[in-house]
Amino acid sequence: MGLYVQKYGGTSVGSVERIEAVAEKIAGFKANGHDVVVAVSAMSGETNRLLGLAGEISEQPAPRELDVLVSTGEQVTIALLCMALHKRGVEARSYTGNQVKILTDSAHTKARIRNIDIENMRGDLEQGRVVVVAGFQGVDEDGNITTLGRGGSDTTGVALAAALGADECQIYTDVDGVYTTDPRVVEGARRLEKITFEEMLEMAGQGSKVLQIRSVEFAGKYKVPLRVLSSFVDGPGTLITLEEEGSAMEQVVVSGIAFNRDEAKVTVLGVPDTPGAAAKILAPIGSANIEVDVIVQNISADNTTDLTFTVHRNEVEKAKSILETVAKEVGAREVISDSKVAKVSIVGVGMRSHAGVASTMFEALANDNINIQMITTSEIKIAVIIEERYLELAVRALHSAFGLDADTVTED
Amino acid sequence: MGLYVQKYGGTSVGSVERIEAVAEKIAGFKANGHDVVVAVSAMSGETNRLLGLAGEISEQPAPRELDVLVSTGEQVTIALLCMALHKRGVEARSYTGNQVKILTDSAHTKARIRNIDIENMRGDLEQGRVVVVAGFQGVDEDGNITTLGRGGSDTTGVALAAALGADECQIYTDVDGVYTTDPRVVEGARRLEKITFEEMLEMAGQGSKVLQIRSVEFAGKYKVPLRVLSSFVDGPGTLITLEEEGSAMEQVVVSGIAFNRDEAKVTVLGVPDTPGAAAKILAPIGSANIEVDVIVQNISADNTTDLTFTVHRNEVEKAKSILETVAKEVGAREVISDSKVAKVSIVGVGMRSHAGVASTMFEALANDNINIQMITTSEIKIAVIIEERYLELAVRALHSAFGLDADTVTED
Repeated sequence: MGLYVQKYGGTSVGSVERIEAVAEKIAGFKANGHDVVVAVSAMSGETNRLLGLAGEISEQPAPRELDVLVSTGEQVTIALLCMALHKRGVEARSYTGNQVKILTDSAHTKARIRNIDIENMRGDLEQGRVVVVAGFQGVDEDGNITTLGRGGSDTTGVALAAALGADECQIYTDVDGVYTTDPRVVEGARRLEKITFEEMLEMAGQGSKVLQIRSVEFAGKYKVPLRVLSSFVDGPGTLITLEEEGSAMEQVVVSGIAFNRDEAKVTVLGVPDTPGAAAKILAPIGSANIEVDVIVQNISADNTTDLTFTVHRNEVEKAKSILETVAKEVGAREVISDSKVAKVSIVGVGMRSHAGVASTMFEALANDNINIQMITTSEIKIAVIIEERYLELAVRALHSAFGLDADTVTED
Repeated sequence: MGLYVQKYGGTSVGSVERIEAVAEKIAGFKANGHDVVVAVSAMSGETNRLLGLAGEISEQPAPRELDVLVSTGEQVTIALLCMALHKRGVEARSYTGNQVKILTDSAHTKARIRNIDIENMRGDLEQGRVVVVAGFQGVDEDGNITTLGRGGSDTTGVALAAALGADECQIYTDVDGVYTTDPRVVEGARRLEKITFEEMLEMAGQGSKVLQIRSVEFAGKYKVPLRVLSSFVDGPGTLITLEEEGSAMEQVVVSGIAFNRDEAKVTVLGVPDTPGAAAKILAPIGSANIEVDVIVQNISADNTTDLTFTVHRNEVEKAKSILETVAKEVGAREVISDSKVAKVSIVGVGMRSHAGVASTMFEALANDNINIQMITTSEIKIAVIIEERYLELAVRALHSAFGLDADTVTED
């Protein structure tokens, strides 16, 4: 007898048939005596269809009107899902973000949730109803419709779970859990039963795009147990939890191998080693809305240093042309770039207390003659930038070196 | 410098190109110094697409959820139209029914407007903005989304005009005005420059489906000047006004010929001539939601009478089977029906003070050997039921007999 908040993404509700399947799954939870609150996305393709209409009219549509437009996508889904539940004799009631209400700030297309009014939902749950909420959307203090940005339905799910004190927030998606790495790259990749919030953040940020990073942060902050599972295949999925002292997770040194294919690196050479130089270089990149991933700067030699960072490959030319102007201003020597790089990371809370993890990693790469161009580390992650063509080879080598292959585990 | 409420129907906003054309038209009004409030329908086809999705799930979807679903159609249009206005440098702001807010009762799928809050709109107009409102929808006291029923966007337009005290409510549609009769039936049909509310009610109710009847009633009640005009062709359209003493309209005896093709007549024969018999017969018809058009009962002979009425042809079998039960209960003799009838009406405020209008009508029909099965009249209308196959012939004969043909007028 739990209270579950379930989030179903666009693929899970991508057709009438799939909406019926979701209703069937929810009906099963109700039949087992659970309370269910559901957050849904727009049917897959719908948001793009709507954005396409806007794009035909304007290259830069007003964000307020974009939100009015795309928020209709989830509104369609909540109504259809309620109808499918009613058909199964399950009482259900739909709510738009405005109706719940999910109060956000006024940053259209990327609003942040400020408060959720749980009164209506509590009333419905007490009456035995399933509550179906439009994900991704909210309303600001002036009654304007806002959206949380793409993928924001995950955040809606987590926020509802936090507000309602739910037993679990279940994110139904098209994969059956979080894997040690991408199964398309490593055949022996395994589904993880549990992963910590921090590990999940590193995994998601590094390219294992199962969950929106923001929703994971949110879940961690409000201590909402989060579970990723498949809406198509029954199974336990992967539970994302708080790290606990002495928990089983501590036994594992490295939980997963993440990677990112579409990186490009840009280096400003011969930057005068003066305070503020790095800030001056990065500020215009930020202003141009170019997202920077890895930043590396080593100690200076001869009073100059080199600053390297990676950006998405599509933005490397834009970044380079901005930097060429900035480089002159700060008195740097030259800007060079390389679009053919990739990032590979090992992630695991266990590595904190284990020496030798880095050397195992570098050794595994050296054994396959993979040259490491850059290294960055965090408490629970070591990332390297390598030549792109070695990406798959590197991921497989590391997956094996850290004992993550399905076979390895079985033999242990 | 007027305040115009303009309503654009589904065909007028049926594609991005047409939405751009509507924006262009509105921009022209703004450039001439007018204030504009716009009510729009869903893009043509969209409401049916949404109802189709619902129909795939359930034959009888919950009305509350149907409203959540279909109200997204207009929400898409308001956003796109605002984007198209912005592109032309016209400031504009969209409002859903909930945001205005248009308060209705809670009769989902056929709600009635109770009140419109004009504060937001006034503020926008003062700032020089065009206000774009989703037609057809509102919100009840509990914050549930409601809809006014199909065609309800006209009603939204009129209600906005009434609430704002607009100078004119302009209903843009795919015809360029109200005609003396259907131009597809009579080649010489003419556009009317003016028509009274009452005439318009009779014309619309009789099958000249230019405007939703409810919106005309509404406009009459609140004395909102209503104009029907084309969104595709420039022109003055037809102004629907209050009848004024000695106005030009009085000169015209008959303003138009209306007709309705899909009628069926049902007669209960030998009804005992006692008080309450007619009510007993019609009550179960009403309960079954069968709409009755014409009702005729003549004086009784031998203490029994015959009661005839017309219904839509699709419902004649249902009506007949209900009546066969009722006929026994009230002691009537028999129920007969005929599905092959049509109704032709002449409409005009002028006929009040003109004798001989009826005889001109009956004579014109007799000249073409058209037999009149039933006659009913109101103050400004005479309707006859005839065999369906004579419909076109009858309309043309009457159009000519009352001097409505374009040629006739020119020659006068």
